[in-house]
Amino acid sequence: MIEMKRLDLDDARVLIEAAAAKAGDIEVPMCIAVADESGNLITFDRMDGAKISSISIAIDKAFTAAAARNRTEFYNQLCVPGEPTFGIHSTNDGRFSVIGGGVPVVFDDVVVGGVGVSAGTAEQDVVCAEAAVSHFYATSGAAAPGDG
Amino acid sequence: MIEMKRLDLDDARVLIEAAAAKAGDIEVPMCIAVADESGNLITFDRMDGAKISSISIAIDKAFTAAAARNRTEFYNQLCVPGEPTFGIHSTNDGRFSVIGGGVPVVFDDVVVGGVGVSAGTAEQDVVCAEAAVSHFYATSGAAAPGDG
Amino acid sequence: MIEMKRLDLDDARVLIEAAAAKAGDIEVPMCIAVADESGNLITFDRMDGAKISSISIAIDKAFTAAAARNRTEFYNQLCVPGEPTFGIHSTNDGRFSVIGGGVPVVFDDVVVGGVGVSAGTAEQDVVCAEAAVSHFYATSGAAAPGDG
Amino acid sequence: MIEMKRLDLDDARVLIEAAAAKAGDIEVPMCIAVADESGNLITFDRMDGAKISSISIAIDKAFTAAAARNRTEFYNQLCVPGEPTFGIHSTNDGRFSVIGGGVPVVFDDVVVGGVGVSAGTAEQDVVCAEAAVSHFYATSGAAAPGDG
Repeated sequence: MIEMKRLDLDDARVLIEAAAAKAGDIEVPMCIAVADESGNLITFDRMDGAKISSISIAIDKAFTAAAARNRTEFYNQLCVPGEPTFGIHSTNDGRFSVIGGGVPVVFDDVVVGGVGVSAGTAEQDVVCAEAAVSHFYATSGAAAPGDG
Repeated sequence: MIEMKRLDLDDARVLIEAAAAKAGDIEVPMCIAVADESGNLITFDRMDGAKISSISIAIDKAFTAAAARNRTEFYNQLCVPGEPTFGIHSTNDGRFSVIGGGVPVVFDDVVVGGVGVSAGTAEQDVVCAEAAVSHFYATSGAAAPGDG
Repeated sequence: MIEMKRLDLDDARVLIEAAAAKAGDIEVPMCIAVADESGNLITFDRMDGAKISSISIAIDKAFTAAAARNRTEFYNQLCVPGEPTFGIHSTNDGRFSVIGGGVPVVFDDVVVGGVGVSAGTAEQDVVCAEAAVSHFYATSGAAAPGDG
Repeated sequence: MIEMKRLDLDDARVLIEAAAAKAGDIEVPMCIAVADESGNLITFDRMDGAKISSISIAIDKAFTAAAARNRTEFYNQLCVPGEPTFGIHSTNDGRFSVIGGGVPVVFDDVVVGGVGVSAGTAEQDVVCAEAAVSHFYATSGAAAPGDG
């Protein structure tokens, strides 16, 4: 039997609120999603004014970060024609996101979920997703990945 | 040009919290979604322990309540084999829900969004969705539909 | 080689306008679609106030009426559990409509297209679709099906 | 509660007619779609002779221009392998168009809908979509985006 850890709803709301705070700072209303370690949605907020087309993109980024256990922009550079991983963006019914803004959430060296942010540029989306996980690591007592 | 009203995120979170409070009372962890008047998702919470299969059902109920401007159980009795509306459950890419638990949110006699709840029995889902809109009408200053 | 006839855009707009006029008479804003003999969309109008969930239903009814060459309510009574045709509503990626409101357009005894109407009750949808084809037969010089 | 504006059907038909007039000038029969600010279809015309494969492309361009609030060709240059936004073309169930011919419609500095044109080259599609919005700005009293 496998024992696992997964974000709970309170954890996930902390991540949403932290991403939204950063989105407020940079003045870009965002769609923000948090998925569990299986990629299934825990919580989602569309900030007032965020783009309709970003609803599913944010959810897809959270799915990808959690289920593939990598930041979505990791796949951006792999998903280039001629490279071995090209085409991964159209897998999983098109839900595999290779656009920055999806970041895994790690606890005790294990991926326990993912955050996905969309509606700005890819760079703005990344900034907000990173702010979310940084805040989570700072407040949850979890060590950030790579901490000594 | 058409002028319209739509729930904002604060409104939608009030609805989520009220549905979750009722779900806590009846001890059934729920998936709860709120859509805008066009059926697009504004916010979503999966309470700890709620069923994975209810994620999309809750979102679909919120979509249907808002976009079709009726409670989802209204279609349940119309969508019976031999009745004229049978088959509506497989329209809109299967997103048209005819299972109780989707309730429109009305403001100034206009549908401004929808709440969808899933994970319990249809009856339990309805109770939580109704609790959400009742609380919203009581606290937002909006008149409930049919109020004199 | 097969020679065929198909509604042109002017024909299709006549059908839309006639359906919309009847929808105005009965005071139900409708989604109205016209498809060609292959089921592909020629033209579509969502009247101000018509339901969002009816957009795809109207298009599906026009598709079905043209491509299956029958009124959609013809299938309503056939699509009953235990009857040989049950299940047809979920074919064609769920686009096969068995809800009244889709009516074929016939010219020289051949189906040249279909009208689909949605947003009211099935009965209201049928009334508007019938008004469209009746007006078309009266003004286009085409004999209505069954005319002596 | 959010207050919003959205194109009505009369506005949308003005856009269709203007795009069709330009398509007539350049002698390329087009599929032309107009979506509301949420990306949902308001009206659609397939001009006689326009390609069947362009039906859904025009609808997708209108969706994208409205829902993502940018011209579709804006994404064309961003959606290049190795660039951060590559992959956006397969999001939203493949409905996110990165091919020129989708143009947002702006009113009082807010996106109130989108026009999508398809069946010619991307350049021809853009010319017709631009003609539509230019005519709309000239006749509706709306200031074009960027007007002083």
